[in-house]
Amino acid sequence: MTHHEQLSIAEQLDRDDPLAAFRDRFVITDPDVIYLDGNSLGRLPMATRARLHAAIDEEWGAELINGWDHWIELARQAGDVLGGLVGARPGETVLSDSTSVNLYKLAAAALDARPDRRVIVTDDDNFPTDQYILQGLAAARGLELRVIKTDIDSGVTLDDVRDAVDEDTALLSLSHVAYRSGAIADMPAITALAHERGALVLWDLCHSAGSVPVDLDGSAADLAVGCTYKHLNGGPGAPAFLFVRADLQDSLRQPIWGWFSQRDQFAMGSTYDPVGGIERFLVGTPSILSGYGALEGARISAEASIAAIAAKGQNLTEYAISLFDDWLAAHGFTLASPRETARRGAQVTLHHPAAWQICQALKAASVIPDFRTPDRLRLGFAPLYTRFVDVYEGMRRLRSIVESGAHLEFPTERSRVT
Amino acid sequence: MTHHEQLSIAEQLDRDDPLAAFRDRFVITDPDVIYLDGNSLGRLPMATRARLHAAIDEEWGAELINGWDHWIELARQAGDVLGGLVGARPGETVLSDSTSVNLYKLAAAALDARPDRRVIVTDDDNFPTDQYILQGLAAARGLELRVIKTDIDSGVTLDDVRDAVDEDTALLSLSHVAYRSGAIADMPAITALAHERGALVLWDLCHSAGSVPVDLDGSAADLAVGCTYKHLNGGPGAPAFLFVRADLQDSLRQPIWGWFSQRDQFAMGSTYDPVGGIERFLVGTPSILSGYGALEGARISAEASIAAIAAKGQNLTEYAISLFDDWLAAHGFTLASPRETARRGAQVTLHHPAAWQICQALKAASVIPDFRTPDRLRLGFAPLYTRFVDVYEGMRRLRSIVESGAHLEFPTERSRVT
Repeated sequence: MTHHEQLSIAEQLDRDDPLAAFRDRFVITDPDVIYLDGNSLGRLPMATRARLHAAIDEEWGAELINGWDHWIELARQAGDVLGGLVGARPGETVLSDSTSVNLYKLAAAALDARPDRRVIVTDDDNFPTDQYILQGLAAARGLELRVIKTDIDSGVTLDDVRDAVDEDTALLSLSHVAYRSGAIADMPAITALAHERGALVLWDLCHSAGSVPVDLDGSAADLAVGCTYKHLNGGPGAPAFLFVRADLQDSLRQPIWGWFSQRDQFAMGSTYDPVGGIERFLVGTPSILSGYGALEGARISAEASIAAIAAKGQNLTEYAISLFDDWLAAHGFTLASPRETARRGAQVTLHHPAAWQICQALKAASVIPDFRTPDRLRLGFAPLYTRFVDVYEGMRRLRSIVESGAHLEFPTERSRVT
Repeated sequence: MTHHEQLSIAEQLDRDDPLAAFRDRFVITDPDVIYLDGNSLGRLPMATRARLHAAIDEEWGAELINGWDHWIELARQAGDVLGGLVGARPGETVLSDSTSVNLYKLAAAALDARPDRRVIVTDDDNFPTDQYILQGLAAARGLELRVIKTDIDSGVTLDDVRDAVDEDTALLSLSHVAYRSGAIADMPAITALAHERGALVLWDLCHSAGSVPVDLDGSAADLAVGCTYKHLNGGPGAPAFLFVRADLQDSLRQPIWGWFSQRDQFAMGSTYDPVGGIERFLVGTPSILSGYGALEGARISAEASIAAIAAKGQNLTEYAISLFDDWLAAHGFTLASPRETARRGAQVTLHHPAAWQICQALKAASVIPDFRTPDRLRLGFAPLYTRFVDVYEGMRRLRSIVESGAHLEFPTERSRVT
């Protein structure tokens, strides 16, 4: 197809887009920039900017210590909004710490709940911090960490899990959407299989939450964690969340006995007595400013609805793949994401031997992608603010770079971007 | 003395105050409010307000993912400013997580370093979360947690520690300034005693940092944690910090193997390999907005100098105690802080049977104190923004309440303030 024909398609898709108006809810300082890294750090919502300014000036600045009369509710309040985005009921999700710390707390709690089992199962496509956290727990407890080898471009399958999880498995810990390929794991089937074999399951939703449908309760998931700074637009390093299914909460105990999990916290008693419910998994004083970012970002996704966000995500990536087929496949790129729409989150990843150089050339051309070692160019499409014409224009500039060889002028060193 | 004479003393002390100009560096929305709870939540510095607004609008909003090129340095950058306030060298202190999570990480690392010893020692005056964290570690590892009984109004002594720490002690963990009385523990002598007996020492600096002189390196302290939202004016729930003495860092390993402690983090390798240095004690993605609050707050304290802050803190509390002697001792109050100036942080705590009611009455009279169960009224004096005339006026209103019995109109329920 000609450029003109592809652009016409994009323009029509934008006209038909029920979420089109949400773009105006975000701060966009430079309209020439094509931002395709919202799955690393989402954009700043205008509502968040206003809320944060007010939290600084009017809450901290003027309410001072009395702000805690309402700040104390933030972890649960944000948790319930986040929970609504991932299929949890109120009281099953709470804002807390970082994803890594939450993984540690919940994995340790799960291992304590299966003291006679000696195996933790994960896969080689899980995010690095997940793998490290599990390695640390396995080392400390003398457990086996069994790592499934997956096809990185298509993600973990039910068959992979069937071969790895056995009657000695205490915990299965996987990412729901893979960080490199964007492949979606079959949460209901994998969870059911692990449960048949008596294991608990801990899902990492960092790349799912706010992007694809997640049904934690419908999948009978036990435990989950996730971050708020990617698709949920919570801001740099905004607190993470954790989920514990309601009927499991009071039977589990996390290892870090901080005072925010203490029953009647402000009685300042000398003996730890964990509260019931999801607050049982809190630890220390929460970051209020960063927490407001998580709350306000989650609210926008809730308003748009995950169904609409996911539908547009599928349309954006389908359109991107059609441009890849049309323009890029002939230039040394191969697809590093599932081609099947239902198995793909809101990103398209491409292999190219010169991916890092291309990544730098794209940035110089005001297209912001992400690089994943060793040869992946990751293009994230945020349904709340990415237009189809942005996909068109980003891919057009990418094609122009590889056609002209402009990327060959850039260094080959590695990225430091999170 | 008459009110007039006491006021004249306060006015003269303000005229002589070398830190007087720092008050103008803070947001003060209601000059009638006497804020005596800066040791729970410090005030908003104007520089912090400006920095946070810029971080939201210009960094997150406009730099997007590229902000990480400099945000990645924040934990270490803030750590070094904080370290300078507590007697640490550059590279020994880092901003990270909450105090509770940091306590867990460092206490666990210390216990791993003394695998043949079976005892953790703390005291009953340590902050509740410290006690809970240590209880959790002792329970998980089958260790004894030995709790020193102290005189709560005067704090832990060297003799107390001598009786408790023995050759089977792996870790001694204490607060440097006690949260109720404000009593200062003898860090150099206590650390030396514990070292003689082969134990590691973990100091909680939450109520010291930014308030009294702390000499971690001069005391040969091993480990420390502290918060930034009290005397350091970092904002509600701003991240905490941790200190590990340089020569110990590479021999210790913390239990939560998150990716921010990984060597060559963005290589995204699959096997945990902790970096050397203080970053070894990081875990997950740090909260940038809340972290900027910690950095900017610490910078103001550094500019003023801890020596000047501590000297004014002593003068403020001495003046407050003179008003207590003159006005309050006859009304059922007794002193719950050390009378000896050198043993006291920047707070004066008073016992009164109706402390909670008095606390409420003070708030109604626009004086913000803190309550500590069961009968303590805690008055914090922040040398950077509390004037001597504020001490005068706060104590005058307090006297007026107890003389008139105005507090008896208020309920007797307990506070929820952190």
